[in-house]
Amino acid sequence: MLGWLRGYRRAALAGDVSAGLVVAMMMIPQGMAYALVAGLPPVAGIYASILPPVVYALFGSSMTQSVGPMAIVSLMTAAAIAPLAAAGSALYAVLAAQLALVAGAVLILCGLLRLGFLANFFSRPVMSGFTVGSAIVIAMGQVHPLLGADFPHWHGPSAAMGLASLLFLVLARRWGAALLRACGMRASMADTGSKLAPMLLVIVSIVLLALFDLRAHGIATTGSVPAGLPQLNLATSSAHWGTLLKPGLLIGFIIFLISMSAAQTLALKRNEKLVSNQELLGLGAANAASMLSGGFPVTGSISRSAVNFAAGANTPLASILTAGLLALALIAPTGWLALLPLPVLAATIIVAVLGMLELDTLRTAWRYDRVDALAWLVTGVGVLLLGVEAGVVVGVMLSMAALIWRASRPHIAVLGRIAGSEHFRNIERYSAETQPGMLVLRIDANLFFGNVEAVTYRVEEELAAHPTARALVLVMSAVSSVDTTALFGLMELNQSLKRRGIGLHLAEVKGPVMDRLRDSQLLDLLNGKVFLSTAMACDHLQNNKGDV
Amino acid sequence: MLGWLRGYRRAALAGDVSAGLVVAMMMIPQGMAYALVAGLPPVAGIYASILPPVVYALFGSSMTQSVGPMAIVSLMTAAAIAPLAAAGSALYAVLAAQLALVAGAVLILCGLLRLGFLANFFSRPVMSGFTVGSAIVIAMGQVHPLLGADFPHWHGPSAAMGLASLLFLVLARRWGAALLRACGMRASMADTGSKLAPMLLVIVSIVLLALFDLRAHGIATTGSVPAGLPQLNLATSSAHWGTLLKPGLLIGFIIFLISMSAAQTLALKRNEKLVSNQELLGLGAANAASMLSGGFPVTGSISRSAVNFAAGANTPLASILTAGLLALALIAPTGWLALLPLPVLAATIIVAVLGMLELDTLRTAWRYDRVDALAWLVTGVGVLLLGVEAGVVVGVMLSMAALIWRASRPHIAVLGRIAGSEHFRNIERYSAETQPGMLVLRIDANLFFGNVEAVTYRVEEELAAHPTARALVLVMSAVSSVDTTALFGLMELNQSLKRRGIGLHLAEVKGPVMDRLRDSQLLDLLNGKVFLSTAMACDHLQNNKGDV
Repeated sequence: MLGWLRGYRRAALAGDVSAGLVVAMMMIPQGMAYALVAGLPPVAGIYASILPPVVYALFGSSMTQSVGPMAIVSLMTAAAIAPLAAAGSALYAVLAAQLALVAGAVLILCGLLRLGFLANFFSRPVMSGFTVGSAIVIAMGQVHPLLGADFPHWHGPSAAMGLASLLFLVLARRWGAALLRACGMRASMADTGSKLAPMLLVIVSIVLLALFDLRAHGIATTGSVPAGLPQLNLATSSAHWGTLLKPGLLIGFIIFLISMSAAQTLALKRNEKLVSNQELLGLGAANAASMLSGGFPVTGSISRSAVNFAAGANTPLASILTAGLLALALIAPTGWLALLPLPVLAATIIVAVLGMLELDTLRTAWRYDRVDALAWLVTGVGVLLLGVEAGVVVGVMLSMAALIWRASRPHIAVLGRIAGSEHFRNIERYSAETQPGMLVLRIDANLFFGNVEAVTYRVEEELAAHPTARALVLVMSAVSSVDTTALFGLMELNQSLKRRGIGLHLAEVKGPVMDRLRDSQLLDLLNGKVFLSTAMACDHLQNNKGDV
Repeated sequence: MLGWLRGYRRAALAGDVSAGLVVAMMMIPQGMAYALVAGLPPVAGIYASILPPVVYALFGSSMTQSVGPMAIVSLMTAAAIAPLAAAGSALYAVLAAQLALVAGAVLILCGLLRLGFLANFFSRPVMSGFTVGSAIVIAMGQVHPLLGADFPHWHGPSAAMGLASLLFLVLARRWGAALLRACGMRASMADTGSKLAPMLLVIVSIVLLALFDLRAHGIATTGSVPAGLPQLNLATSSAHWGTLLKPGLLIGFIIFLISMSAAQTLALKRNEKLVSNQELLGLGAANAASMLSGGFPVTGSISRSAVNFAAGANTPLASILTAGLLALALIAPTGWLALLPLPVLAATIIVAVLGMLELDTLRTAWRYDRVDALAWLVTGVGVLLLGVEAGVVVGVMLSMAALIWRASRPHIAVLGRIAGSEHFRNIERYSAETQPGMLVLRIDANLFFGNVEAVTYRVEEELAAHPTARALVLVMSAVSSVDTTALFGLMELNQSLKRRGIGLHLAEVKGPVMDRLRDSQLLDLLNGKVFLSTAMACDHLQNNKGDV
């Protein structure tokens, strides 16, 4: 904690200041926009961008993570709170902050219990499908504010402003950096500069609104943004703790996943080490802080963190500076923000989530592994049809089902001896000789509850195919662990083989596995011997045919 | 389907008839008792024991499985229906039958989709903890009918009869078979005969009640049992389909688990082959049949199937005979059954579930693997504190968490060369020589989303510990599969190593893995070579030091 501050080098300051400034300029429209996605007044998005990143800087593990509102987490917040309170009501805001506290408590608890490995409950294709599905849901939700009316209708002035903004942002995204470079800017600065297009658009649109009084033409705006820092918020609804537990768990899980994948991408670039349990604590504390300052659930954002990184951030000081600048913006007069047109904010949201529509993972999975591609599609469609919360559950279940399914089909090879050598190889891939009366099987998987039945089944099949075998040798060279269920399975196999007068021998058992098996009864009851190598097993059994 | 009937040998008949008779005698008290556990009138238990086993005989995969009411499934039925309808109401019976249909549909669907591998979602310790927890819940639920009042109070005559019955059944269980053997009965017959103690108790208690009019002393009885076969039941409550879906899923899952473990135990004894997808269809059809005949969810019971097996059952004809005898019992006058005292039934339930209180699995797990022992305890306590449905969910989550946790700690060994040989071994366990400038790691696990981060992390740790290494060789001899997430992980590792000028080489890649990797870009982009053996990799890299 704060290790970065004690070792702070002056050389890091310039980069941190520049990144702090750039991200603050990015955060104003983004925070307000994601507050709208969450169903909250825009200022809540600024509140959620001040205290949480500062607290994350104290407890988190990433140097360049930018913690604050994020599209998918805002969508999940809206999905959780909308059924419980009327949009715009005081209760809605209380529940959104309370949800951040619940999610934060979940994250801190997981961090203290060292449950960081839980991030592995989502496979990458599932996460990608979830992200794309959520992006589509978010974009569709912005069609109404973009057009000022429900599609396929539109309110002329709103639609004109919204679509023009959309066009500008798409062009800026595609050509902005090139244009800035053509104007003589350095490549890295041009890339960063182009990320400020949304802030430029916000300023221009506010100026236009102020000059031409476009509100008179029916263009909706964010309305007055209260000036001043957020008040300390301790309000909770005691009736809703139970109801918020499930969404809090799901949002906590997604906050962790999104933040870890953002932080990892950056850590990889600098060979930094991330500590997932530390990250859980940092995110949990940030969400608790978000609740205290009247915000809503926050996380690290991949796109914003990438800008932070590219703009030169070296330490969390950049995020602290960003927070300071946002606080200053709230202390300064905020009247101008009231004129921000909603179609412009909708356009920034749509363009932001367009960046989440990546199909590379699906394409790679499709070529490489259809099961993973299917998991992508089912999760994505699940989010679209069943909603974002059900999408998380579907994703976890699919990841687990894929895991169990894969695990339930372990690779098992019948081995034969490479003539004249001590080597044993898969007889399907090498011309290797088997010995009559002996069946040698190599199990290429850790033995656990998910595959022990499949292994037993396969052993029986091979025994049926080799009816003369009086000795079965299991080559355990690829088995690094045997769980309790598998231990029972092996004991039952041993019993069954004993009844049939077939010896069960083990070869090449790894040290750690052997250490564990000594704590069980299997070795005492084993209807055969344990051999150091397959060759030793086969030589011995060849020379002692009566020996089972 | 019906393969057993076409190949029926006359020699099997005697055993089938004897087993059919014995199981019918066992089924009458058991069926009525488990109907009470489910919160239904006793006759529903007989209904659920007639059509379902016949239908299972047509579609199921086990030769000696006895399908019918079962304690845990009845408990889950009560847990699902009790919040929806008043005990004893017509709606309660309709919903219990409807639940059997939902569970049956789930099972049939899973069978058609070949999802039999889903049984692997429960580890054996979790199943054992779940069973013991459920047994305790069931036994506690029978204390009231046993004593005729709430503990610690009791109704004298009821408690006397209940406790005497309990004592008789416990003694019969412990010494019954020995007594029968002492009377000159053959050992196998004595074992089976002792299982009829509940039926004997039922008959004796009915005679006592009839002779001494014990109802006048306040002993409750089952009340009139309607004569005649069950009517075709098509009644459903259309408002409850949605509500019944979740319990239907959970009960379907447990039905499958219980039945598979019962059938497997028996199949192992006869070296029969079970087809899990066929078993799903058989159980699904049996539950649909249970709905049609006014029953409730049914499954194969380990204790009853063991008796069926021990009493000589060779084919499903035994179960069909049992069903026929039960149908005859309903067609004959049923007035006598009305006198069956509830304390006696409660005693039979308690003694039946005592047999489920096995702590062997916990004991073995405690010695062998504390994580598995913990999973046992949490599942058992979860059932006691949160109920049987939540217990299933807790169990699945624990099994999955244990799986992910184990998977997230893959075994990775630094290899060195055994001097003067072509063999490479773990340097921690063998005196093997490493070469400067080269790091050889063997990954002892399949690569997938659950462990790819841990692998990358470990690789970086080892690289940090070997700062002079310019070449990293990953020995893939124990890797049987690489999923899409792991493929991305390897590509990112490759990118990162390339930036740092470290070569990434693969050795001993298995055939099937290599076939898949050819469908990806990894081999094209690889910052190194693929070698057939570790020795070839090291020799080559030794001789071509500049080559990355």
